[in-house]
Amino acid sequence: MQYIYAFKEGDRSMKDTLGGKGANLAEMTKLGIPVPQGFTITTEVCDLYFKKNGYPEGYKDTLEKYVEGLEEETGKQFGNKENPLLVSVRSGAAISMPGMMDTVLNLGLNDETVKGLIAKTGNERFCYDAYRRFIQMFGNVVLGIDHDLFEAKLESLKESKGITNDVDLSAKDLEKLVAEFKEIVKKQTGEPFPEDPKKQLDMSIEAVFKSWHNQRAVTYRKLNNITGLRGTAVNVQTMVFGNMGENSGTGVAFTRDPSTGTNEFYGEYLINAQGEDVVAGIRTPNEIKTLKEQMPKIYDELLNIRKNLENHYKEMQDVEFTIEEGKLYMLQTRNGKRTAAAALKIAVDMFKEGLITKEEALMRIDPDQLNHLLHPMLDPNAEKDVIAKGLPASPGAAVGKVVFSADDAYEWTNEKDEKVILVRKETSPEDIHGMHAAQGILTSTGGMTSHAAVVARGMGTSCVAGCSEIRVDAQAKKFTVGDVTVNEGEYITLDGSTGEVILGQVPTIKPELTGDFREILNWAKDIKTLGVRTNADTPRDSKVAREFGAEGIGLCRTEHMFFDETRIKNVREMILAKDEAGRRKALAKLKPNQKEDFAGIYRAMDGLPVTIRLLDPPLHEFLPQKDVQIEELANEIGVSVEELKAKIVSLHEMNPMLGHRGCRLGLTYPEIYEMQVQAIIEAGIEVSKEGVVPIPEIEIPLVSTFKEFERLRIRLETVIDKYRDQINFEYKMGTMIETPRAALIADQIAETADFMSFGTNDLTQMSYGFSRDDIGKFLPIYLDTCILEADPFETIDQEGVGQLMKWTVKKGKEVNPHVDVAICGEQGGEPKSVEFCHNIGLDYVSCSPFRVPIAVLSAAQAKIKEGK
Amino acid sequence: MQYIYAFKEGDRSMKDTLGGKGANLAEMTKLGIPVPQGFTITTEVCDLYFKKNGYPEGYKDTLEKYVEGLEEETGKQFGNKENPLLVSVRSGAAISMPGMMDTVLNLGLNDETVKGLIAKTGNERFCYDAYRRFIQMFGNVVLGIDHDLFEAKLESLKESKGITNDVDLSAKDLEKLVAEFKEIVKKQTGEPFPEDPKKQLDMSIEAVFKSWHNQRAVTYRKLNNITGLRGTAVNVQTMVFGNMGENSGTGVAFTRDPSTGTNEFYGEYLINAQGEDVVAGIRTPNEIKTLKEQMPKIYDELLNIRKNLENHYKEMQDVEFTIEEGKLYMLQTRNGKRTAAAALKIAVDMFKEGLITKEEALMRIDPDQLNHLLHPMLDPNAEKDVIAKGLPASPGAAVGKVVFSADDAYEWTNEKDEKVILVRKETSPEDIHGMHAAQGILTSTGGMTSHAAVVARGMGTSCVAGCSEIRVDAQAKKFTVGDVTVNEGEYITLDGSTGEVILGQVPTIKPELTGDFREILNWAKDIKTLGVRTNADTPRDSKVAREFGAEGIGLCRTEHMFFDETRIKNVREMILAKDEAGRRKALAKLKPNQKEDFAGIYRAMDGLPVTIRLLDPPLHEFLPQKDVQIEELANEIGVSVEELKAKIVSLHEMNPMLGHRGCRLGLTYPEIYEMQVQAIIEAGIEVSKEGVVPIPEIEIPLVSTFKEFERLRIRLETVIDKYRDQINFEYKMGTMIETPRAALIADQIAETADFMSFGTNDLTQMSYGFSRDDIGKFLPIYLDTCILEADPFETIDQEGVGQLMKWTVKKGKEVNPHVDVAICGEQGGEPKSVEFCHNIGLDYVSCSPFRVPIAVLSAAQAKIKEGK
Repeated sequence: MQYIYAFKEGDRSMKDTLGGKGANLAEMTKLGIPVPQGFTITTEVCDLYFKKNGYPEGYKDTLEKYVEGLEEETGKQFGNKENPLLVSVRSGAAISMPGMMDTVLNLGLNDETVKGLIAKTGNERFCYDAYRRFIQMFGNVVLGIDHDLFEAKLESLKESKGITNDVDLSAKDLEKLVAEFKEIVKKQTGEPFPEDPKKQLDMSIEAVFKSWHNQRAVTYRKLNNITGLRGTAVNVQTMVFGNMGENSGTGVAFTRDPSTGTNEFYGEYLINAQGEDVVAGIRTPNEIKTLKEQMPKIYDELLNIRKNLENHYKEMQDVEFTIEEGKLYMLQTRNGKRTAAAALKIAVDMFKEGLITKEEALMRIDPDQLNHLLHPMLDPNAEKDVIAKGLPASPGAAVGKVVFSADDAYEWTNEKDEKVILVRKETSPEDIHGMHAAQGILTSTGGMTSHAAVVARGMGTSCVAGCSEIRVDAQAKKFTVGDVTVNEGEYITLDGSTGEVILGQVPTIKPELTGDFREILNWAKDIKTLGVRTNADTPRDSKVAREFGAEGIGLCRTEHMFFDETRIKNVREMILAKDEAGRRKALAKLKPNQKEDFAGIYRAMDGLPVTIRLLDPPLHEFLPQKDVQIEELANEIGVSVEELKAKIVSLHEMNPMLGHRGCRLGLTYPEIYEMQVQAIIEAGIEVSKEGVVPIPEIEIPLVSTFKEFERLRIRLETVIDKYRDQINFEYKMGTMIETPRAALIADQIAETADFMSFGTNDLTQMSYGFSRDDIGKFLPIYLDTCILEADPFETIDQEGVGQLMKWTVKKGKEVNPHVDVAICGEQGGEPKSVEFCHNIGLDYVSCSPFRVPIAVLSAAQAKIKEGK
Repeated sequence: MQYIYAFKEGDRSMKDTLGGKGANLAEMTKLGIPVPQGFTITTEVCDLYFKKNGYPEGYKDTLEKYVEGLEEETGKQFGNKENPLLVSVRSGAAISMPGMMDTVLNLGLNDETVKGLIAKTGNERFCYDAYRRFIQMFGNVVLGIDHDLFEAKLESLKESKGITNDVDLSAKDLEKLVAEFKEIVKKQTGEPFPEDPKKQLDMSIEAVFKSWHNQRAVTYRKLNNITGLRGTAVNVQTMVFGNMGENSGTGVAFTRDPSTGTNEFYGEYLINAQGEDVVAGIRTPNEIKTLKEQMPKIYDELLNIRKNLENHYKEMQDVEFTIEEGKLYMLQTRNGKRTAAAALKIAVDMFKEGLITKEEALMRIDPDQLNHLLHPMLDPNAEKDVIAKGLPASPGAAVGKVVFSADDAYEWTNEKDEKVILVRKETSPEDIHGMHAAQGILTSTGGMTSHAAVVARGMGTSCVAGCSEIRVDAQAKKFTVGDVTVNEGEYITLDGSTGEVILGQVPTIKPELTGDFREILNWAKDIKTLGVRTNADTPRDSKVAREFGAEGIGLCRTEHMFFDETRIKNVREMILAKDEAGRRKALAKLKPNQKEDFAGIYRAMDGLPVTIRLLDPPLHEFLPQKDVQIEELANEIGVSVEELKAKIVSLHEMNPMLGHRGCRLGLTYPEIYEMQVQAIIEAGIEVSKEGVVPIPEIEIPLVSTFKEFERLRIRLETVIDKYRDQINFEYKMGTMIETPRAALIADQIAETADFMSFGTNDLTQMSYGFSRDDIGKFLPIYLDTCILEADPFETIDQEGVGQLMKWTVKKGKEVNPHVDVAICGEQGGEPKSVEFCHNIGLDYVSCSPFRVPIAVLSAAQAKIKEGK
């Protein structure tokens, strides 16, 4: 085992051993790019250091050898009074953990070498400044002395001199500070400051290793779910200085514009400055292009390096450089962070430039990032008065006047033509019409998967949920937060991507499906094998989704249609009917509406499959809860308030999620499903006559036994029989797999079902025994304390729920290779879940319209990964 | 393939081929017992008849041959005018389906042969009566003519003669009736009545085959879950007549007393009568022992046959016999039905007589039947005025005065020393003290697994649930059913085994664990390998269960202890506390109570394991719901009613079953579980000093992720560490497997858990998505229409939930062979479920005390079956 590699010995493939930073320094060296030389102590040494509680045999000798090598190469020597070697010591793990571990700069300085450095640079002030910084860093990082002790000395010195800026301190001042800093070290540690550079080096390396297990680093890895690393590498690199005069300087740059993706060199620099000066923002740096005039040779050299790096890495690079007395050194290169728009443009451009393949281009884009491009955004330059912050429940910005009831939202929008934000403690299915009308939704309770959040994401409407800071008083038509009160009719702005609630109107920017975006999606569609459909309940949503690439509807929830104001009356009449005849009478009134709904959706999805789920929620969801509404309804339908209340009580359920819903309704009140199937088929016949090709897929929800599906299939096929000779389109009949038991007996169901679609929301609820409505009291704690690594309602729980899914696919396809297996839960548009669905062999995923592009890209990435 | 077997050719091993009846007739023939000779057409012929839509080749010739053989053997001939052969044609499948298929008697009679019979018997009236009965039966069964057409003729004849009894009809009358019956046949079928006996035989055999698929038979098989049979066999047997004079007779008998099991010949007979006369009850039959004087030779012969049959079948037999002119014939033998007490006595006696082994004796007893022996019964001779019928929710009889609240039940019992029946719409955990006090419980809503039913079964208290006929008016302290009103303080009697609600006091009989019962249980305990524990929350229940054979406690629910009147105040103080300190203060007050509870249970279960489940239900279950109670509590704890109501609302859950309960409470409020574990350990230390051996097993409920268990185990072990040097007893820590996900990741849990116990109630709820509280609206329909074959809360759903259980045992034991896997759901005492648990390798089952003997016997039977 080789403990140490000189930069010239390694390359970028050795990231696991050399860490990301070390591997890239080695790679640049290999490419002939000027890099201050040095070496990397491997992650294996770190691993062994902890396992053996000390260094492995032979390590010390190797280090000695590599130090000698570096001295030879640079012509400088540790402790040499004329030409001292100064180095930096930096950590660098295989996965970047910014700011989590420690760094020591200017190592090698002592009372002797500082004089040599002064002689060499002729810059006494610079040298003592470097020296005092070194003591301070070493003292803090290696010796564990409180940073503030050094700062206090610096402050009191400035005070005594009547100075406010560090730069006004003289060389003498700094020399004095060095002596004082050394005093601090001696007082705090009981030992004098180590003057021997090799001792400084040993101590610094050990400190970096130890920092691998410091609290910050451990927590960071836990929170970011970073596991399986051996430890950190340590990079020892010759110091170069950008602050050695007007022919020195330092800068950072991106090989392309990280905010637009334009293929232009982009960055900034400072003459006669150190790297930290650029970051600190005390002096305003220059744009990189001005370097062309100031140092034309260096600029050309940089442009060459830029080209070299991009050609080599085939990725946009983020680089750091230093110019020391007219000589250019590269200190770092890494893949550069970029905006979503830039990511798309760079990927498309690099493919067109022949740098990368389409597959590589697709792999470059983080699907989650696309979210930003699909919703209105706040103008980043606008001022904003943030008054509260809730959960970023549904992305996008929204501006409107505050209203406090769904009815008001509906009326203000449709009658007064106002844009409104609906503010509620929480929402319920009765609020759908208002939620549809509103620009955005703000709730004070409920989580990322509360009713408001789920429905808003489905509609692509901005939503900030669970904003517990605000107190909603719907009665008084106001909400308060601290001492701010917002009354009905006042403007607020929501940012559903950050959870911010902002007073007043903030300008927004409209989203566009740019050419690059379209192109990427087209490539993704060509490559992916997993189907992507959408969850949509209206022709409008269907159109949006199709625009975004949906290949059909994977879930059309018929119950949302029932809440429409003109229909809910008939729905209630049906529920309150005394017998089957009464129910049939009310259903007959609903049928034309349902037919119209389906016809509209067929037209929007012409030629694509439309999965229509038969009525699912328990009937009591359709009845009013408040006294005033109950009275109103009682008057309308001509029964006494007592009678109506008794009916409502009789329908009440302890655990409605596990109650009288789904196919259980279909089996106890078959006339409901019969009406729906008639509407599905009749609408199909109607649009066929217009030349539209409908492909209905009738879905029976909440099946947990084989017989539930079999009985309903037989019954509904009998209904369809009556239209048999008018039907000139294909249709299918299948089930949802929402209960764990349905998954366990999927082989039985697959025998007669045409498709089986996972309702992973319910499946997750029942597998964990988590009610989505009630998890607010413990889920946040579970996530904070890592009992759960992720919210299983956001990303599929592969260990638990995933096993049921795998089982279903395996057993189902064994029995019936033609059965389609799909997912239509919330997770169907989440990248990791989409990859999982691809891997276990699902036929398609279905997600809300605004997540379709994300699912398309994720599906393509999954396919590409599989091929590797 | 042999299509037909003469009785002398078969034996009882051929039940599948000859049907039960045919096989037993063959067996008796083989034993030399006098049986009217005949032959059996096999079930295979029936099977082929339906498959080929006709008889198989060669069948007709075979039939011809067997008819000839029978003629030869009896010396009688079909159609012979002097000595006609008469036969019966009867169905008989491998599994008895009483009354479901058809029979034809006296076949072979026609206008000619009837005369021969008259000449032979000298009894004209008897012969014409037999003839008219034959036409009537044949007409109905074979020709499908409505029975009533014949009956109407008979009635009008009797009317015209001014007669009321059939026996008063003369031979001439009957002869006339024969003619009229033939007229009916001709009119209805368009064909004359078939006079040819061979044609009669062919038609009858075919009719019997066809009856296999009639509606009645199909439904019967479906309801009784009889599958896999090929069809029915047909028995053709020579007729014998018990009504041929004073030296003839007929009777039925049991080889032992079927109601007590005493080893005495038991039965009754009639002289000069047909079998149907005994059954019809027009004449009062004589006790069998009087036959000794009347026909001493026949009686001896019968006693010999009785001995012969019992020695041969090694089972109590139920026989039919006929004496024709001084000659005894046996017409049937089969295993006799018996009461639970008789079943036990017969099994024990037969073992002692050396007839059967212990294993055979154990297999003879239906575990479900034991239920009757474990609870008080209504005196079967008492009169009863049944006013309503509900679900038989918890067996046993109870008599008491009606009360309408738990408080009243408690007070009347404890202060007035009254016996009461608690009548409620439904019960809730707050009613426990009243339910404990009451003799019996009657509810108007809720099913077999409602709160009332489950708790009552657990306590062994009689309960009639879901009695929807009664209307409970708790306010007015009365209930009504039809026009009967029962007021507070009036007596009613419940029969929890039948669901009957009876007005007034009916005398009851106390249960006894008789010597035979004890003996059988001891044998069962020796043989079984599956452990049997009990679910018990009090020392009293623990003692009862130990008495009944429980080998420890498999589930002690600590929450029941929290509802005790003196404690609930502290529980509420804990729930309503503003912070952890407040909660700890209230918990400190609860600890002495919990400690006392556990100490009492350890004493009762000295030396046996006691599984204690930490707090499981959501906290809101402990808060009052009614305004008056809320006011009371607010005053008590010194907060405003509004504040208290707000707290109650904030704890409200949409789906409490899937809410903030179980280990989720333990993780969010660790101080609760800490207090409980302290009490468990401190109580253990306390009783150890008395010489009692406590074996606590600490159970963490509602786990769905590995980390939930791991975190709590670590935390609670830390609590136990403080007592480490005082603990001189073993303890374990484990989980419940209640969520499907827990089963799916059982391998992870088993790594650190000492035991895993299936909570099959919750596991079933979540697997199906069935809320036990809400299934009343569809489960009855599901059971009625066979969508479900059984209530999965009564017997384990082996296809679905069972798969999760198998997976858990397999994966769990693979990882940790020492982990105990058990069940403590309601199904743990149900015979089929116990067998399943044995077969999949569980370590023990746990059930309510009154089901322990049932589980013990079922476990022994499962072991015996496995050995076969």
